[in-house]
Amino acid sequence: MVSDPRRYAIGFVGLGLIGGSLALALKKAGFASSVIAWDSDPSVLERAAHLGVIDAAAHSVSALMQSVEIAVLACPTQACEPLILDMLNDSGSAICVTDVASVKGELYRAVVDAAPKSAAIYVPGHPIAGSERSGVAAADAALFERHRVILTPDSNTDPLALGLVQKLWAAAGATVQCMDVLEHDQLLAATSHLPHVLAYALVDALAQSPIREDIFRFAAGGFRDFTRIASSDPVMWRDIALANRDALLAAMDDFCTRLEALRSSIAARDGAALESTFRSAKTVRDEFARDLALRDSGSS
Amino acid sequence: MVSDPRRYAIGFVGLGLIGGSLALALKKAGFASSVIAWDSDPSVLERAAHLGVIDAAAHSVSALMQSVEIAVLACPTQACEPLILDMLNDSGSAICVTDVASVKGELYRAVVDAAPKSAAIYVPGHPIAGSERSGVAAADAALFERHRVILTPDSNTDPLALGLVQKLWAAAGATVQCMDVLEHDQLLAATSHLPHVLAYALVDALAQSPIREDIFRFAAGGFRDFTRIASSDPVMWRDIALANRDALLAAMDDFCTRLEALRSSIAARDGAALESTFRSAKTVRDEFARDLALRDSGSS
Repeated sequence: MVSDPRRYAIGFVGLGLIGGSLALALKKAGFASSVIAWDSDPSVLERAAHLGVIDAAAHSVSALMQSVEIAVLACPTQACEPLILDMLNDSGSAICVTDVASVKGELYRAVVDAAPKSAAIYVPGHPIAGSERSGVAAADAALFERHRVILTPDSNTDPLALGLVQKLWAAAGATVQCMDVLEHDQLLAATSHLPHVLAYALVDALAQSPIREDIFRFAAGGFRDFTRIASSDPVMWRDIALANRDALLAAMDDFCTRLEALRSSIAARDGAALESTFRSAKTVRDEFARDLALRDSGSS
Repeated sequence: MVSDPRRYAIGFVGLGLIGGSLALALKKAGFASSVIAWDSDPSVLERAAHLGVIDAAAHSVSALMQSVEIAVLACPTQACEPLILDMLNDSGSAICVTDVASVKGELYRAVVDAAPKSAAIYVPGHPIAGSERSGVAAADAALFERHRVILTPDSNTDPLALGLVQKLWAAAGATVQCMDVLEHDQLLAATSHLPHVLAYALVDALAQSPIREDIFRFAAGGFRDFTRIASSDPVMWRDIALANRDALLAAMDDFCTRLEALRSSIAARDGAALESTFRSAKTVRDEFARDLALRDSGSS
């Protein structure tokens, strides 16, 4: 890729771990000429300015949109819809608007319905990265390095806007891939939202057990790893589950079909069927773990 | 605890990671005067002797039982039943017989039915420890340090036999707790066997997806951790699932009830119910993780 000598005025609407980390990465890469931000909590902006994450605070979304070329929405899932509509219906000087929400279909449909004139400059985005930590104080310029970012443009997306968002993420060290918006939501339902629901359901089920005390007294490291995601933020996951409702319900149903098949094999003492399913799952999972290790080591 | 100056002749029937590690730990602690072993695979015994894990190989289970005071069955789940009956029906010089199988009820009932005369010297045991590695070459004298061991004696168990097995595990650095055999199996179904089945079912479901390739291409570290146990040995887990069939089916049904409740909340867009379940699961899981961290640091 030929390096782009242009620097851009970048604005963040909502500034937590993801927005703050992206701001730091874009400053470090020399992609940002300036970074300004608006957040519903003014103390976040004070802290961010103090930490050098942003250059200035905007007093409103509208004011921010008047002075940026690229606007990034990086707020919690539930707050996304009204804010993206504000950003697009009064897009000011922005050449493109993007976001980092982990569910894309619902937001995309809201934009097409309620801000059709500016929908072309909206490039839906989702960085596949995160941390147990949250808040702008945890911002890390390296958070996206070697991570993947999915963009879900459609045939109406302005190529200039798309190109800019691709460059932005590349500058932050991420690998960018475009995908259909529905496939994105199915993918995330399968690999992230469903596992979270399963972990919450498992801990919930065990917490109801008459031998609950001994269960948690004797559970060991494997159980801790398997249930780690049940320690995730309940509000964030409530919002994600509802925003990706249809794809998540479909993924839950597919899962239950396979679980029911395993149940039948166990009930019928069908060792051959059980071993066959376990073996093919192990093969798939081993292959995935190998690929991921290669990816993490930078070979792929 | 007053230290016991006595050393014991110890025999292992089946010698893999668990048996080998226990043998090394008991030698190191000065609890074993000698360690002999029998295994269905003679090359395992050669390797173990070469590695200094055992002092001698027995040519049969019966020969082993003639020369030991404590006999430990440490073979795969499926092979346990005939071997424990051989050990008890011809118990030779053994004062006690114990095992390390991760399911206890089925084996216990087989012993009571088929070796009632020697059942009193059988002390069912289960060390809550393991490793991704397997085989005697991976044996580690420290494997059980600070880990828990559950024993499931009943009112007929010989107190001398029980006391010896307690001392044996204490010598290996483990914390020993006695428990009812049915509660043990419920406990393990909940904290270990059910999570394994869920991980296998999840990978199996995703492997059937039309977007399977992208699913595994984009899945990240959280998914890797959640599915790690789906890379476990399929034969071992087939045997465990069948041996602990009743408790596992009950645990699966409890889990499905809670999952179905979450499904209904998502389908009905009932954010309050969803958040409430996620929040209470997070509270329970956070508390468990804190307790486990204290335990691991040796404070509890």
